Amino acid sequence: MTDTQDVFAAIEERRAAILSELFDYLRIPSISTDPDYGAEVRRCAQFVLQKMKDSGLDARIIDSERGGHPMVYAEWLEAEGAPTLLFYGHYDVQPPDPLEEWRNPPFEPTLEDGLHGGQQIVARGATDDKGQSYAHLAAVAATLAERGALPVNVKFLIEGEEESGGETIEDYVRAAASDRARKALLECDAVVVSDSSMYAPGQPSLLYGLKGLLYTEIKVTGPNRDLHSGTFGGAVTNPLNALSQIVAQLRDAETGMVQIPGFYDDVRPLEAWEREGFAALPFNEQAYCDAIGISETFGEQGYTTLERSWARPTCDVNGIWGGYQGAGAKTVIAAAGGAKVSMRLVPDQDPAKIAAALQAYVDEIAPVGATAEVTVLSEADPVLVDVEVPLAEAALDAMEDIWGKRPVKIREGGSIPIVTTFAQVLDVPVLLLGFGLSDDRLHSPNEKLDVDYFFGGVRFTARLLDRVASAHAAGLS
Amino acid sequence: MTDTQDVFAAIEERRAAILSELFDYLRIPSISTDPDYGAEVRRCAQFVLQKMKDSGLDARIIDSERGGHPMVYAEWLEAEGAPTLLFYGHYDVQPPDPLEEWRNPPFEPTLEDGLHGGQQIVARGATDDKGQSYAHLAAVAATLAERGALPVNVKFLIEGEEESGGETIEDYVRAAASDRARKALLECDAVVVSDSSMYAPGQPSLLYGLKGLLYTEIKVTGPNRDLHSGTFGGAVTNPLNALSQIVAQLRDAETGMVQIPGFYDDVRPLEAWEREGFAALPFNEQAYCDAIGISETFGEQGYTTLERSWARPTCDVNGIWGGYQGAGAKTVIAAAGGAKVSMRLVPDQDPAKIAAALQAYVDEIAPVGATAEVTVLSEADPVLVDVEVPLAEAALDAMEDIWGKRPVKIREGGSIPIVTTFAQVLDVPVLLLGFGLSDDRLHSPNEKLDVDYFFGGVRFTARLLDRVASAHAAGLS
Repeated sequence: MTDTQDVFAAIEERRAAILSELFDYLRIPSISTDPDYGAEVRRCAQFVLQKMKDSGLDARIIDSERGGHPMVYAEWLEAEGAPTLLFYGHYDVQPPDPLEEWRNPPFEPTLEDGLHGGQQIVARGATDDKGQSYAHLAAVAATLAERGALPVNVKFLIEGEEESGGETIEDYVRAAASDRARKALLECDAVVVSDSSMYAPGQPSLLYGLKGLLYTEIKVTGPNRDLHSGTFGGAVTNPLNALSQIVAQLRDAETGMVQIPGFYDDVRPLEAWEREGFAALPFNEQAYCDAIGISETFGEQGYTTLERSWARPTCDVNGIWGGYQGAGAKTVIAAAGGAKVSMRLVPDQDPAKIAAALQAYVDEIAPVGATAEVTVLSEADPVLVDVEVPLAEAALDAMEDIWGKRPVKIREGGSIPIVTTFAQVLDVPVLLLGFGLSDDRLHSPNEKLDVDYFFGGVRFTARLLDRVASAHAAGLS
Repeated sequence: MTDTQDVFAAIEERRAAILSELFDYLRIPSISTDPDYGAEVRRCAQFVLQKMKDSGLDARIIDSERGGHPMVYAEWLEAEGAPTLLFYGHYDVQPPDPLEEWRNPPFEPTLEDGLHGGQQIVARGATDDKGQSYAHLAAVAATLAERGALPVNVKFLIEGEEESGGETIEDYVRAAASDRARKALLECDAVVVSDSSMYAPGQPSLLYGLKGLLYTEIKVTGPNRDLHSGTFGGAVTNPLNALSQIVAQLRDAETGMVQIPGFYDDVRPLEAWEREGFAALPFNEQAYCDAIGISETFGEQGYTTLERSWARPTCDVNGIWGGYQGAGAKTVIAAAGGAKVSMRLVPDQDPAKIAAALQAYVDEIAPVGATAEVTVLSEADPVLVDVEVPLAEAALDAMEDIWGKRPVKIREGGSIPIVTTFAQVLDVPVLLLGFGLSDDRLHSPNEKLDVDYFFGGVRFTARLLDRVASAHAAGLS
């Protein structure tokens, strides 16, 4: 097997050019959730398309079939008989608000001294996900430039709606289940995604489990209008008192357990190897608390903080409102109030089943005189990827080659719905190989990516191609 | 005794002018609780001042000694030896939110077909309290215009902070206890207030009991910043879940009882004559529910709806907020949330004592990882007025003269803190003679006052002056 030193040298030689291209990419404010930025999102798709073509890939735009933002698809399929890797990423970014908290304008990428030695790139999208997914492309481009060929086949599918629901790619990939041409287009041996963090600085990781999501709005209504709290107080059900009662009964205050009947029925228990693996990870509870300014953690009894965050289902209020919220006093009984309530789900919980259980529970506990209605705003299935496969081993080897440490296997509390869809529709392992860091401030002001980690990601991707080719060859021999 | 027909005729003649002046008054958005409306509040005080001067009163502005909104004072004291009535009212109004529910803009008064025949004036402040207190002034003005003199002495004290705590007048009147000049200025034989409703259409009433108020804001804080609900969900105390738990524990969901320890310790029980009197009043529970669109009433067990509303202490959430309240989903754990929580108190509950009990209780029930802070926004003592006095009888007679029915004696769930202060400092009866209706939607969108009731109030005030003069003369003779 090649030791990939030729491509590493090519990457080193192109270092300034790669960084300059990434900066051009970061300068485009591709904010997908804000209609005012529609033209910038399209310009960003064109930018990605051009870079792919420049890299020697056969690339094209796939327009949204539902009026959303386009995807960019590219392929290089000349490694006959070799495996095919599908690299997924997204070129859209979160809104940069609050703007005043940025040290530099969010779309003027800046190099600063980094938190972990070396320098860091500060810009919206630096780590989520322009920087991470661009590393894949830069590695493929360098390999093609140096060798004129790749050791495996590659496909790229880069979407523009990850930060605003992801419906376009979701629909597109789901339709492949019944569309042979589309299925052939997406066909691969593994999907590679770098849209997450490694476990700790210098400690690479393979993320094999993501939570699902059920995001709802609960609206509580009572009287047909706002009432004077002096005239009607004490004689009618107050919708905001009722809302608080309902929300308070979603979780047990003492144990942290979710109280929706049947909520835990389909929860797959943590396996012994998982609990042992998590327990072996370096984790400083005090540092965790200090970083977010709390005195102690709280959650479901009988589980560690990592287990709660990664592998146990949760229920959180994300927003609550009703009545008078201004300065001073207004003596009103509001006609209605509401709350955003989301649940993070784990295998084998079904969002639709939990949604029905939630509505039934809320109906049951709603006080007399109040009506509670649950609206589902978003759903995603949880996923556990089977990583006991040769391609995953090749990825772990490639990471170890670059970072000098064996990756740890981790789960996460967040949701990446398209990962589940890829796994379900394509029936291949989805390898979540993020190389950002947990202090990258994704979705926050001053988002960053360390330069060393970015180039680590470029080198890792180049190494991955060789490792996969070699594992395949070994399997054939 | 004069039959007051001369003044009634003068009022009839000035009808269009009186209404037009009231509309000008209603056009001023004197929202005292919102600092953005400071200039409008001052403009409104000047408007009242000018109208008083125009009416033939000796009037002046009394600036707030605490940086609050000014009061307007006026007097006519030429009825030597006759009693003095002090008319209290307020020129400030509640915020008009939610704006979108108004049929017409809240500060563009509109005449509509009324619910009780005739027409109704729709505007913020129509009944609370511009319309009602302006009736006093219009009657005094008409009497002076018609007769060149009044049969009794009158004073007016119109404040601009009733809807935002009323501290300025509160301090001013309390200081009269130790300030002879100020005491002389306020000296009177009775205070007359029309800032409430009559018991039912066509059924006048004398209000002898008002609840006190403790209005607080409870703020719950947790982590030092908003957190991603995927990354941190299930592992940290969520301030909005905590807020809901705290608020939910303020009242027992089944019995409606307030759960703050000691809350009921000083509650004076309803007397037998009160329970009998209330029970004898026409009250249609179904109509009450239908009017506000609820299926059934709810409150403290063992009491009727009127008893709960008028004479039992209550606890209501007036507003609640925190986290994401916009459209769609945002997966956030908010750093903080809050609620406006108010309690209506009855004799002999002490707001300060209840406030301390609330903070202690909230400290006790706040979940680990959350801090709950109670801020008192407003306090008022409850009051029961002794109405077994000759001046009160004169007022009852005047009401009967106008509305053709003997007034009933009632209590109310609302609070008018200054009433308590007047009673305590001036040691005179405070006569609460409201002529609004309970469907006037005060504090709600589309607040109204029926035109016939407004002019009933004007005529009643003119009649009151003659009745009081005549009762006094009878007492002297």
